[in-house]
Amino acid sequence: MTDYRPVPEDKFSFGLWTVGWRGVNTFGDAVRPPLDGAEAVRRLADLGAYGITFHDDDLIPPGSDAAARAAVLKRFRAALDETGLVVPMVTTNLFTHPVFRDGGFTSNSRDVRRYALRKVLRNIELAVEMGARTFVCWGGQDGAETEAGKDDRAALDRLREAFDLLCAHVRDRGYDLRFAIEPKPNEPRGDVLLPTVGHALAFISELEHPEMVGVNPEVGHEQMAGLNFAHGVAQALWHGKLFHIDLNGQRGVKYDQDLRFGAGDVKEAFFLVDLLESAGYEGPRHFDFKPPRTEDMAGVWESAAGCMRNYLVLREKAAAFRADPEVAAALEAARVGELARPTLDPGETTADLLAEELDLAAVAERGYAFERLDQLAVDHLLGVR
Amino acid sequence: MTDYRPVPEDKFSFGLWTVGWRGVNTFGDAVRPPLDGAEAVRRLADLGAYGITFHDDDLIPPGSDAAARAAVLKRFRAALDETGLVVPMVTTNLFTHPVFRDGGFTSNSRDVRRYALRKVLRNIELAVEMGARTFVCWGGQDGAETEAGKDDRAALDRLREAFDLLCAHVRDRGYDLRFAIEPKPNEPRGDVLLPTVGHALAFISELEHPEMVGVNPEVGHEQMAGLNFAHGVAQALWHGKLFHIDLNGQRGVKYDQDLRFGAGDVKEAFFLVDLLESAGYEGPRHFDFKPPRTEDMAGVWESAAGCMRNYLVLREKAAAFRADPEVAAALEAARVGELARPTLDPGETTADLLAEELDLAAVAERGYAFERLDQLAVDHLLGVR
Amino acid sequence: MTDYRPVPEDKFSFGLWTVGWRGVNTFGDAVRPPLDGAEAVRRLADLGAYGITFHDDDLIPPGSDAAARAAVLKRFRAALDETGLVVPMVTTNLFTHPVFRDGGFTSNSRDVRRYALRKVLRNIELAVEMGARTFVCWGGQDGAETEAGKDDRAALDRLREAFDLLCAHVRDRGYDLRFAIEPKPNEPRGDVLLPTVGHALAFISELEHPEMVGVNPEVGHEQMAGLNFAHGVAQALWHGKLFHIDLNGQRGVKYDQDLRFGAGDVKEAFFLVDLLESAGYEGPRHFDFKPPRTEDMAGVWESAAGCMRNYLVLREKAAAFRADPEVAAALEAARVGELARPTLDPGETTADLLAEELDLAAVAERGYAFERLDQLAVDHLLGVR
Amino acid sequence: MTDYRPVPEDKFSFGLWTVGWRGVNTFGDAVRPPLDGAEAVRRLADLGAYGITFHDDDLIPPGSDAAARAAVLKRFRAALDETGLVVPMVTTNLFTHPVFRDGGFTSNSRDVRRYALRKVLRNIELAVEMGARTFVCWGGQDGAETEAGKDDRAALDRLREAFDLLCAHVRDRGYDLRFAIEPKPNEPRGDVLLPTVGHALAFISELEHPEMVGVNPEVGHEQMAGLNFAHGVAQALWHGKLFHIDLNGQRGVKYDQDLRFGAGDVKEAFFLVDLLESAGYEGPRHFDFKPPRTEDMAGVWESAAGCMRNYLVLREKAAAFRADPEVAAALEAARVGELARPTLDPGETTADLLAEELDLAAVAERGYAFERLDQLAVDHLLGVR
Repeated sequence: MTDYRPVPEDKFSFGLWTVGWRGVNTFGDAVRPPLDGAEAVRRLADLGAYGITFHDDDLIPPGSDAAARAAVLKRFRAALDETGLVVPMVTTNLFTHPVFRDGGFTSNSRDVRRYALRKVLRNIELAVEMGARTFVCWGGQDGAETEAGKDDRAALDRLREAFDLLCAHVRDRGYDLRFAIEPKPNEPRGDVLLPTVGHALAFISELEHPEMVGVNPEVGHEQMAGLNFAHGVAQALWHGKLFHIDLNGQRGVKYDQDLRFGAGDVKEAFFLVDLLESAGYEGPRHFDFKPPRTEDMAGVWESAAGCMRNYLVLREKAAAFRADPEVAAALEAARVGELARPTLDPGETTADLLAEELDLAAVAERGYAFERLDQLAVDHLLGVR
Repeated sequence: MTDYRPVPEDKFSFGLWTVGWRGVNTFGDAVRPPLDGAEAVRRLADLGAYGITFHDDDLIPPGSDAAARAAVLKRFRAALDETGLVVPMVTTNLFTHPVFRDGGFTSNSRDVRRYALRKVLRNIELAVEMGARTFVCWGGQDGAETEAGKDDRAALDRLREAFDLLCAHVRDRGYDLRFAIEPKPNEPRGDVLLPTVGHALAFISELEHPEMVGVNPEVGHEQMAGLNFAHGVAQALWHGKLFHIDLNGQRGVKYDQDLRFGAGDVKEAFFLVDLLESAGYEGPRHFDFKPPRTEDMAGVWESAAGCMRNYLVLREKAAAFRADPEVAAALEAARVGELARPTLDPGETTADLLAEELDLAAVAERGYAFERLDQLAVDHLLGVR
Repeated sequence: MTDYRPVPEDKFSFGLWTVGWRGVNTFGDAVRPPLDGAEAVRRLADLGAYGITFHDDDLIPPGSDAAARAAVLKRFRAALDETGLVVPMVTTNLFTHPVFRDGGFTSNSRDVRRYALRKVLRNIELAVEMGARTFVCWGGQDGAETEAGKDDRAALDRLREAFDLLCAHVRDRGYDLRFAIEPKPNEPRGDVLLPTVGHALAFISELEHPEMVGVNPEVGHEQMAGLNFAHGVAQALWHGKLFHIDLNGQRGVKYDQDLRFGAGDVKEAFFLVDLLESAGYEGPRHFDFKPPRTEDMAGVWESAAGCMRNYLVLREKAAAFRADPEVAAALEAARVGELARPTLDPGETTADLLAEELDLAAVAERGYAFERLDQLAVDHLLGVR
Repeated sequence: MTDYRPVPEDKFSFGLWTVGWRGVNTFGDAVRPPLDGAEAVRRLADLGAYGITFHDDDLIPPGSDAAARAAVLKRFRAALDETGLVVPMVTTNLFTHPVFRDGGFTSNSRDVRRYALRKVLRNIELAVEMGARTFVCWGGQDGAETEAGKDDRAALDRLREAFDLLCAHVRDRGYDLRFAIEPKPNEPRGDVLLPTVGHALAFISELEHPEMVGVNPEVGHEQMAGLNFAHGVAQALWHGKLFHIDLNGQRGVKYDQDLRFGAGDVKEAFFLVDLLESAGYEGPRHFDFKPPRTEDMAGVWESAAGCMRNYLVLREKAAAFRADPEVAAALEAARVGELARPTLDPGETTADLLAEELDLAAVAERGYAFERLDQLAVDHLLGVR
């Protein structure tokens, strides 16, 4: 048993807006003081993180003049240099300001769409300046409460226009930057455009430069739709599109909880870590959570530390699970590996297939021994093997 | 006000398994007698339907020998000829038999996968013989209760292998047949592969012949994930992939209810019909519902008639909604049409965009008047305009 | 067809916090200006409402001194007198201020619990002064994100202590005031105490003065748990506990949407109105909704007007449904009235019952014709009968 | 670390219908052979269980004559005697047969209601004969798909009539038997009467002999409504009504999964076991699960063994959690114990309360340190402390 202390090589990153969340929601006022960006850098570095990410407005208060902006950036950069923390990803806030009440890239208002693009274009400069290689786009206000109010096909046209423009811009500038779309089914809008990982992956396939755009799945966002997160991430990996990931916790189909990683569906978290590690995902393990309003700043840092600790614990367990000879035997009994073998042999034809018969009665009795396999996973998860 | 009597030109079709459902579920035995296929054809024709669809095993009892099979088909064909009903779609049962307990195309058992392909290949012949142009594939048992038991990426490989093989086969034979994948999030498996319209659309983009494969969205299946059905269908249309559609009713996130069309979320049904009609969808309006177990056969036919009646009623209302000058004014006020205008003018560059400023304070006050618009939709829905 | 203009006799009331909601939520800043209480009174009166309700802090800005408080109340009272609007219900804000981050009556902090009680006691004086007869208690922050942090049984003890104290206080003062508990399953807390109408009804049965406490069910709150609102209200009526009701709209299991009444599940709204009207509910029809953030103030008033209009439309439809002879026949065919007849005749014993036999085979074939009945309801809802 | 071998003192019981489930559901045929009751007794005894329970029809095939019935019971009794297994609970099947398609105690058909009562009365004799002390009633077909088809208040009247009759009967006979109502929100009916633990508890308070009736909460049934199971059980305990419990697993708001205990939300399972053990619940730990259709009979017994193993593992962890000094300190820091202290001191009055002031600014800063506490729980759950 290790002490599960994170180190930069673990690639843990945090949104500045996570530890900096002040607790405002529909039913409650702020419960915590503002958190300075440079202070966040230092605290996260102390905890063992390797990266910090931000929305433009998290770091630079909206309305700052050039001097104020420069001062903020200087302080932030100094903290990065001092701690060695990196900025692997940057994102843009296209939701908080009232102008975005009907969305950003797909607002019915053309002037707002233009402003949204402009805000992203400007923020790309900052992202590049900060050394970010991934640019996340979450269009949480791009949706509708009434179907009558949004022409979805036009919205998808505008979204494609936006990404085609941004990709062209990045290519023109020669920047080494990829985009990652973050899906969400609802909240704050009644229904959000590109509600799941699947919808986002499908959308990407229609772009001019699909190779520049991937997804940034978030644990809770898929679980809000009752979807299995590990399965969704597996499909994203299959498409070669897992460009970034948002780790947090959610307890079922309800409002967006943004609990710390490991605090929601812990079994799903185990299988997720197992997947990320075994698939060789090399990007940041990015935490996008909200320390509950019940916490003061000490609780915020406990919560942040817990995210990383839980990942490390689960990573160790997943490795032990995969190394366990009884698990190997159970996987064999469950025929898991057999699925990797093509259904037809090389050269086989449908005629060959049609010439064959299956002994239905015999195969009907075949069990798959998944319960044994799942219990071994639970045993590893609970640490009783 | 018309009497809403369906005619074949309305393109209403029904699965044989819908009116023929006997009511067996996890908690209850059969409540209704078997329904003969030819009888179903006659009753549906009497009600005004234009088509009937089936799984192989619905029509031809599994285990039938060649003579029995021929007799069934002869009777069925005679009923079709007599009534003029067509068979626009055929599908294959890859779920009821115990051999499919871990799925069909993605069963961990290779011999089962081969059998599933064989069953589909044979059924394609019947589909073509019947004149079907669409072949629906629902892989409801292709999923998992434990993530450990299913290698998702291998499953997607096998699924791609299956569709590539089937498409090649259909091309080789020169058949005029397209495939439509039906997504579902869960039930009967804990989590099902390709859980939503989005996931299926993304998958299709990776096929050798993506143009031959589309989706068959089902109202209840998307709503079981809390997703907005009209938005999902709109995205399918945007991708040019709405090859077929399953209409029914569902009341929220719960087990698969398969209520008659119009009996679930009636407002969503209104917007769906509005979308299908305004988008010029020309395929069948296919009902995939299950008359509740409380009904006897008289109730079954009431339920089937209700599906069609509700579609016709909603079609009339949607047309009236679109023709209403106050609605036109409300759409204008809500800037709905403005979304169809590209965000950039032809020839505009990002430099042009960056040179512009938005009056944030002024635009922050802009309202979108969606409540007015939605209330007009409700008024039309309720028939009070 | 009437013009559905509300009049005070319809007993429509609105929370000041509804039309006054400025649009702040987790992801967005305020989009609308503050709304003055007296202005709200006048606008609601113009629209045909009969009542207005408020949380203490909605009306009187927290921190107001006695003079400021008096001035606000004077203006508000003048508006009431001028318009004839009444204040049938008052409630207390025990959630917005950071001190309530772990709840009010059941905060782990005893000093907060005492403050919460004090805040309610003071507000009771205002309620009585305003002529309110119902005092609603919503304990939305009384819950937990981690089970470890809340001793539920102690929480229920404290909640009982609170209500016993408040009831005793009201009795001591001789006030004509009843309490109504508003349940909610989650949000803003991960899980909320007394999550449904059922849990609240059960709790009430343990009080010293259960006759003084009832429930205030809210459409969306029950639907957030996937529960049927009409069924829940029916049970509250059965217990004699429907003291008040919050009408709004919700589209399924997700975050608390607070849509205008009729804009969510419209079929459920129809059956709810049918129930309230046929059961002779005489309390206010109180709208607790949030005009979407997309709306400006004009949209807010459209939304408020829509709530009332939809109730009136549905009330008319429900009456027509009940008066329709075909519906009467369908109810008879569905044996709905038969359920009102006791299962045993007066004087019958279990011995009599045991002496009887049922013809299982015959009764197994009996259908209940609910599809016919439901289709008649849909026809009335859609206005096509 | 023990080997977690169950012994009868652990009080683990299983429904005969659980290990005996053959796998029939809406989408699939039987996958497993019938299981003889006596064989089930022996296998469960071998695994370390202490009890077995059954529906009348599980044990005695419907339609058996007296001789066949006697033979079955003799074999079953012999197995019980041989193994020492007991029958702590019996229940009645009021759902499988088509006559129950509209429910049992609340069917619209009076003759069906009478038959349902008769079936229960007869089964009570068997229950008493078997030594059962608890009689569970699950009315899963007592519900509706259309609100028009069910008069809820009449249904509750009939349900009360049924329980009052049954209680009177049991009292007349002098049997030592209590009833436990099992709530469920939906499935197989669209909405079920008494959908949650709360609704059932409220209903019980209206009975003639409420002391004879409690609840039998089932993990998955509450979680199907998105409710927190531990909180629901805590409220049942608070009312003194936890007469029995059904343990299984569910992964969120979807169809009724009936997974093995520990295979669903494992964190919730931990807090549930912690609650049952710390509250001194002395009844059976009853597993009501369905081994997935993927399993053959070997998998069924693995699944059954897993239920008990997971309970024992979690019991050990919960004890360690409660004994951990750091947990004690964290509970103190989170003020959990403070909630057990009455909010008013003995003799204090509302006047005393009103004379006090709270330093709002100071208390607003107070954090509750729940994240620290929850992380300690996760650490114990994962076995890393």
